[in-house]
Amino acid sequence: MKRLLVASAAFAALMAHPALATEALVGATLIDGTGRAPVPDAVVVIDGDRVVAAGPRAKVRIPDDATVRDVAGKWVIPGLMDANVHLFFQIMPDSLMRYEGHYEDVIAEAAQVALKNGLTTVFDTWGPREALVNVRDRINSGQVVGSRMYVAGNIIGLGGPNSTDFFPASRQVFSGRIADEIDARWEQGVGADLLWLTPDEVRAKVATYADTTKVDFLKYAASGHAQMQFLTFSPETQKAIVEEGHKRGMTVQAHTSSPESLRQEIEAGADLLQHCDVTGMKPIPASTLAVMAKRKIPCAALLITQKNMTWQRDNLPYPMGSFAPVRDQNARAMIGAGVPLLLTTDAGVYGLEETHPMYKALVAAPDNLTVLGEGHFLWLQAAKELGMSPMEGLLSATKNIAVAYKRPDLGTLEAGKKADLLVLDADPLADPKNYRRISLILKDGKVVDRDALPNPKVTSK
Amino acid sequence: MKRLLVASAAFAALMAHPALATEALVGATLIDGTGRAPVPDAVVVIDGDRVVAAGPRAKVRIPDDATVRDVAGKWVIPGLMDANVHLFFQIMPDSLMRYEGHYEDVIAEAAQVALKNGLTTVFDTWGPREALVNVRDRINSGQVVGSRMYVAGNIIGLGGPNSTDFFPASRQVFSGRIADEIDARWEQGVGADLLWLTPDEVRAKVATYADTTKVDFLKYAASGHAQMQFLTFSPETQKAIVEEGHKRGMTVQAHTSSPESLRQEIEAGADLLQHCDVTGMKPIPASTLAVMAKRKIPCAALLITQKNMTWQRDNLPYPMGSFAPVRDQNARAMIGAGVPLLLTTDAGVYGLEETHPMYKALVAAPDNLTVLGEGHFLWLQAAKELGMSPMEGLLSATKNIAVAYKRPDLGTLEAGKKADLLVLDADPLADPKNYRRISLILKDGKVVDRDALPNPKVTSK
Amino acid sequence: MKRLLVASAAFAALMAHPALATEALVGATLIDGTGRAPVPDAVVVIDGDRVVAAGPRAKVRIPDDATVRDVAGKWVIPGLMDANVHLFFQIMPDSLMRYEGHYEDVIAEAAQVALKNGLTTVFDTWGPREALVNVRDRINSGQVVGSRMYVAGNIIGLGGPNSTDFFPASRQVFSGRIADEIDARWEQGVGADLLWLTPDEVRAKVATYADTTKVDFLKYAASGHAQMQFLTFSPETQKAIVEEGHKRGMTVQAHTSSPESLRQEIEAGADLLQHCDVTGMKPIPASTLAVMAKRKIPCAALLITQKNMTWQRDNLPYPMGSFAPVRDQNARAMIGAGVPLLLTTDAGVYGLEETHPMYKALVAAPDNLTVLGEGHFLWLQAAKELGMSPMEGLLSATKNIAVAYKRPDLGTLEAGKKADLLVLDADPLADPKNYRRISLILKDGKVVDRDALPNPKVTSK
Amino acid sequence: MKRLLVASAAFAALMAHPALATEALVGATLIDGTGRAPVPDAVVVIDGDRVVAAGPRAKVRIPDDATVRDVAGKWVIPGLMDANVHLFFQIMPDSLMRYEGHYEDVIAEAAQVALKNGLTTVFDTWGPREALVNVRDRINSGQVVGSRMYVAGNIIGLGGPNSTDFFPASRQVFSGRIADEIDARWEQGVGADLLWLTPDEVRAKVATYADTTKVDFLKYAASGHAQMQFLTFSPETQKAIVEEGHKRGMTVQAHTSSPESLRQEIEAGADLLQHCDVTGMKPIPASTLAVMAKRKIPCAALLITQKNMTWQRDNLPYPMGSFAPVRDQNARAMIGAGVPLLLTTDAGVYGLEETHPMYKALVAAPDNLTVLGEGHFLWLQAAKELGMSPMEGLLSATKNIAVAYKRPDLGTLEAGKKADLLVLDADPLADPKNYRRISLILKDGKVVDRDALPNPKVTSK
Repeated sequence: MKRLLVASAAFAALMAHPALATEALVGATLIDGTGRAPVPDAVVVIDGDRVVAAGPRAKVRIPDDATVRDVAGKWVIPGLMDANVHLFFQIMPDSLMRYEGHYEDVIAEAAQVALKNGLTTVFDTWGPREALVNVRDRINSGQVVGSRMYVAGNIIGLGGPNSTDFFPASRQVFSGRIADEIDARWEQGVGADLLWLTPDEVRAKVATYADTTKVDFLKYAASGHAQMQFLTFSPETQKAIVEEGHKRGMTVQAHTSSPESLRQEIEAGADLLQHCDVTGMKPIPASTLAVMAKRKIPCAALLITQKNMTWQRDNLPYPMGSFAPVRDQNARAMIGAGVPLLLTTDAGVYGLEETHPMYKALVAAPDNLTVLGEGHFLWLQAAKELGMSPMEGLLSATKNIAVAYKRPDLGTLEAGKKADLLVLDADPLADPKNYRRISLILKDGKVVDRDALPNPKVTSK
Repeated sequence: MKRLLVASAAFAALMAHPALATEALVGATLIDGTGRAPVPDAVVVIDGDRVVAAGPRAKVRIPDDATVRDVAGKWVIPGLMDANVHLFFQIMPDSLMRYEGHYEDVIAEAAQVALKNGLTTVFDTWGPREALVNVRDRINSGQVVGSRMYVAGNIIGLGGPNSTDFFPASRQVFSGRIADEIDARWEQGVGADLLWLTPDEVRAKVATYADTTKVDFLKYAASGHAQMQFLTFSPETQKAIVEEGHKRGMTVQAHTSSPESLRQEIEAGADLLQHCDVTGMKPIPASTLAVMAKRKIPCAALLITQKNMTWQRDNLPYPMGSFAPVRDQNARAMIGAGVPLLLTTDAGVYGLEETHPMYKALVAAPDNLTVLGEGHFLWLQAAKELGMSPMEGLLSATKNIAVAYKRPDLGTLEAGKKADLLVLDADPLADPKNYRRISLILKDGKVVDRDALPNPKVTSK
Repeated sequence: MKRLLVASAAFAALMAHPALATEALVGATLIDGTGRAPVPDAVVVIDGDRVVAAGPRAKVRIPDDATVRDVAGKWVIPGLMDANVHLFFQIMPDSLMRYEGHYEDVIAEAAQVALKNGLTTVFDTWGPREALVNVRDRINSGQVVGSRMYVAGNIIGLGGPNSTDFFPASRQVFSGRIADEIDARWEQGVGADLLWLTPDEVRAKVATYADTTKVDFLKYAASGHAQMQFLTFSPETQKAIVEEGHKRGMTVQAHTSSPESLRQEIEAGADLLQHCDVTGMKPIPASTLAVMAKRKIPCAALLITQKNMTWQRDNLPYPMGSFAPVRDQNARAMIGAGVPLLLTTDAGVYGLEETHPMYKALVAAPDNLTVLGEGHFLWLQAAKELGMSPMEGLLSATKNIAVAYKRPDLGTLEAGKKADLLVLDADPLADPKNYRRISLILKDGKVVDRDALPNPKVTSK
Repeated sequence: MKRLLVASAAFAALMAHPALATEALVGATLIDGTGRAPVPDAVVVIDGDRVVAAGPRAKVRIPDDATVRDVAGKWVIPGLMDANVHLFFQIMPDSLMRYEGHYEDVIAEAAQVALKNGLTTVFDTWGPREALVNVRDRINSGQVVGSRMYVAGNIIGLGGPNSTDFFPASRQVFSGRIADEIDARWEQGVGADLLWLTPDEVRAKVATYADTTKVDFLKYAASGHAQMQFLTFSPETQKAIVEEGHKRGMTVQAHTSSPESLRQEIEAGADLLQHCDVTGMKPIPASTLAVMAKRKIPCAALLITQKNMTWQRDNLPYPMGSFAPVRDQNARAMIGAGVPLLLTTDAGVYGLEETHPMYKALVAAPDNLTVLGEGHFLWLQAAKELGMSPMEGLLSATKNIAVAYKRPDLGTLEAGKKADLLVLDADPLADPKNYRRISLILKDGKVVDRDALPNPKVTSK
């Protein structure tokens, strides 16, 4: 047994990439993500990319050949996860054109911004499918450093960036062919035209999409994006989409934004309710809330701080100003009822010069949840403000997400799990601000060289 | 028994208003709207506002005190009906402001334009509720001349003229308060905000609307108006709306514009499918068509001539250009399958100076179905082009509508029915153009002074 | 000689309208508007609508039959004037339509708002010509109470409210015919089409306008309104316009908004430079300033407070944010150089519900100069902040305007002048805030019943 | 002396690039561009890039070492010129972004499209300055094949593509920084901000521009581009600009679009009136026309065919529809008065997919003058339709332009001139369609391999 002395930045850099045969983190308080009480003076033993043991020093043997990392006085928690990000976030026309041919660089940079800030796993729920899948594969194969990615590709039933679902104004200045080409990178055969089809026809499109695009999970639109109160697919079609996902072992989630679309998604059997807290002008009906609580349906909620909520309420035009207070009400009701919540931010990397009014308004808001690398800390702060217990907050960002997305080797620090973890300088259960005090990040058992990220800088240069 | 000689226009004018105790139309070919074969040399006896007998001269006794109108060489048919008009049609901002305080004059004028052209009954399916109801009542009580009106008021679930469902651009120049005040005249408590509500909440709103607004029938949105492919209400909500209508003996119809919204409307139990032929980019699925045919669900189809269809196909931008050929395909399929069609036009009176691009495009089209007073003739022409038999065409404009809307005293010329009829100079079954050759109109047993209509001229001056 | 006791509001109302044969205001400090030092314990004698004497008590005899008004401890100054108002101010589409048929009521109300706040004379420099002239005549003939009005009608070379010079967005929703009809009320044959014409052709149009429209003075555009940096008329055309005005004894002014248009206006011989301080992104060139100072050309400057200036600088988008600091610089330079400035506000009455972004931005600004009834007080405050002496400030609002507009019977309190005056409770030369402390207003020798104004309320109800 | 047999395409290709020491074109009818009568059976002798002799066979000696090209039965004319093109033409946002980094390729392609169609010299009057100058230099040094280019860079006083002078809608979707960067490539310090400056300040800016940018001639805006009726610079400023150009031996022209801006340009001393025929809603005044005719001021007129004129008249919205008939009237008047006209097209290369409404309208028009490679043929056709003599038409496209732009070695086929010429299969004076029947192009004495152009294809691929 030998001690590791992190003597210099040069040495740290050297350590960043090669896998350690065996390593032991010794002396920290372990919060293992299972919900069990914190374990003081714990040992976490890692072999390759896996945890082989984690528990009190008295019960965990440190292998003889293990490199020991002394983390006494610190806290060890599972790597954080975000149930909803957009690694290709800048979909305003000039960004689309500026990054033409460089989508993968943009995505890799965002995955690095996420990882640098403690998100060892992220779920991308809408983006240019091919580029996302390629970066995911390069990260997973170790060619590129970045947060572990799972990818939905398109939101089934919605169009691409230049469609009426997002920024149709682009088409006032872009040629139709260019706009269509770009949109197709998102739509991938399951775009807005699906709304004209019968349940069986949609089923066939979704089956092809699931079989051919290498996406990890499915997300469909249960309601409109630009006009949130509209429904998209009939119950029969929603059930068909869910069935096709389940046939293939995929989790299925829906974009919902109204009380009725939320209810329909639940009745269709979705595994995970995406931004369940967003129900527009009216809160979640009591009957729906009761079902969510009883069946413990994982709910990815866009929790916002009180500061952000009041800003939205006071600054956004009708009817949007009314949405944030409803979200606040929903969040408190779900926490009270015991609905399992997931940390979810809808976040991405903002460019330096976004000028679209929508972006401007978001950027102007304090505690903007949708800033990747920052939003998840705000979420954990908001969770506390809304009455969630500290331990439940931690589970929302770790185990709950792994369970909801059916990733059994993620989310906790137990034998056999992926060695994704954070070492913190202060107790996150005492104050959610302490999640920001990251001392060390391990992903797949390897130390992340945070200072080197992102590299190269693309949108953030 | 004495013969009536229609000697002069002066005399005709004299006859226009006072009700005749008893009158007999003698010698024409009678097409009574029941679907039975035409009866040559027929007699129709009218007492007050009712038909007391109609049939071959041999079988119908002419009362001794009857005034006899010699209509030998002519054709007598029931008064025509239109299952979908908008008597307040000019909803561009400057029309709204120009006619502020004069909505009822505008509506009365349109009801007179309809009557003058042979429509003795029209069903208004979206408009400013209070003004429509007032004009309806004044016409029914004989204070005002005009087509018999039945009124839906708002399309449940849609907003008023300045809402995102119609012309939100108005709000770029109008103050919010003015725009809201106007919209409220249409919405009447059952506007677009209903999309945020649960089935029970919608049910309660609809009940209040049905109980308090004096409307004759209900129309709800099964799909969006501006974005046709979106669904509006869940199946549960649609059923609730239909039930509330049926509890009160009202017919219920839905605005549909996609294959799925059409199917949902049928499953919800609607009595009448409004513009069933409009299914956007995809035709009516075979399974849905089979249900329509089997259950003989009345379908109000916006049949257009081949000339209009090809114009729309060739001139409207994507995706709208694709809608007309689909409608054509749907119409032929429904006619082939024996679905009972209703004449429906969506028509209204155009102003002299409408400049909104949408209106301009419509006005530019040949054979524009939506011109009130003209559209129903085009519909009958289109029906022939699409393969409908002449007799079925006539039934679509008469009896089918009365049956669908549950108005048993309308639609045919039989004993006990309302004495609404047209005398034509040529056989409408030989050529639908002959519907235009109107010699005489009786409504409620009274001759309509066509030359005097409309009076006063408001929008058409 | 008898004393007047203003015993009650009822009595005051009784006194409001009938002309007093002779009246003497006794005991106040008189600031007579000539620029002479204030006269303590002064007497102002009024006969009918004229001042017959004004000076120290020792030198002015009070006629025996005069009603004496004891104003000891107060200050008497000439009635205030505004060199640039818009009595019909609400040119957003819904206002145009709402007040259709009621333009004169709107204008009369604004003239009353002005008078109530101490403006006994205003110069309307752009508006619907016929209505303005009618109200002017009704006020002058005593049929209607209101500020004395002088009217320019159109700005020669600019279009009406719905033109590209003002709010062309209106034409997205208005029909062309309605928009044109409205614009014609402003344009009166001297609209934007004049920019296509030769100097001689413009001359002929202006001659007709001056001869037939009963306007009091001429205003032409030396530069664009929406795009301020563009020139409109060539020097030859500008000279032709000025000559035509001068031939008829009319003062001529130009709308200018750039250094070059200001120079051209001066070279064309304009009598009065309208908003001379507005030169866009660049200040008045030294050579132009020298000419203005040497020739003492009256300059109607839109002086704004420092609070308003910094707000504009910090809140308006490029390039408009840069205009206010330039105006500030110009104002200081003109005051320093001794250019005679005129109080000018561009003010009008805001409606209750204006929602156009431009109006919203203006309304949001502190110390908004363009609020009629308030703007002139702000101007006098701004003048002080910019370094103008108190007496010069008073002259800017009285004598300077009368001289510039060639109205020799206005502007000072001297024998033979119109008896337009204010009695103030505090010394306006000590602090411009004291202009707000109005105790009494006389116009045409009659007491104004301020509490009764405006009546009726139209836009402000 | 030996005969050249152009036996095969392969041989022609071989001949394309190497300069011939001496070559003689023998046997064609020579129209030498001086205005002299055509010379049958002529000889044109070329040495290097120059004409050394041109005239009747009897008078021109063919050098012994000359390669002889037998062109009997054909017509030889000077290379055609266009007084106004835009080699970087696609300024819609998606084009700007798509060709980011490739401006020079786009320009070179356009210069090749021009050359391929017989334009041996073009004058680019607005574009991205640096790229244009670079391509010009590469063509002149023989590195790149293309039409000889002369470059104005910016139109002094106008902004770049994303400015209010052109397509400000781009800024609704582009970030300000990107839009500004692009615009600066056009504006080069002499953009729209100059309208705020005094004559002396503008003079200084223009001097710097002329001294530092390597442009060949100056073009300034005498009137607005988006709003044509506005004037831009005062007469003093216009004179200053012209003087600065003349000091440096540059020709100076102005963009004009109204009667007054045309007059001002003439009075300022411009050498060449750019699109003098465009005077908006009113024709050129008689007095201005007289000056143009008397002083023989070269006028670059955008002549359009009757077919195009009537299309514009009947299809463009008010007021644009009125412009084409005025242009027609102006063209006929100038031809009648003997004003020397220059062929000018405003042409450029259209992309495959331009969807901006303005472009769509232009593309939809028959006989679109602004299609580079086609427009000059249409111009010559239009000239005939408008009453110009065949010889005057030819001079408009050759000598007149050389004279107006002060390029004494261009424009005619005389000893000492540049050997730029076309060999045609039919007589262009008999029918302007024959200009299209190009058999051979020589530029700088070298045969142009027309089939190889453009290469590479960029916008036209």
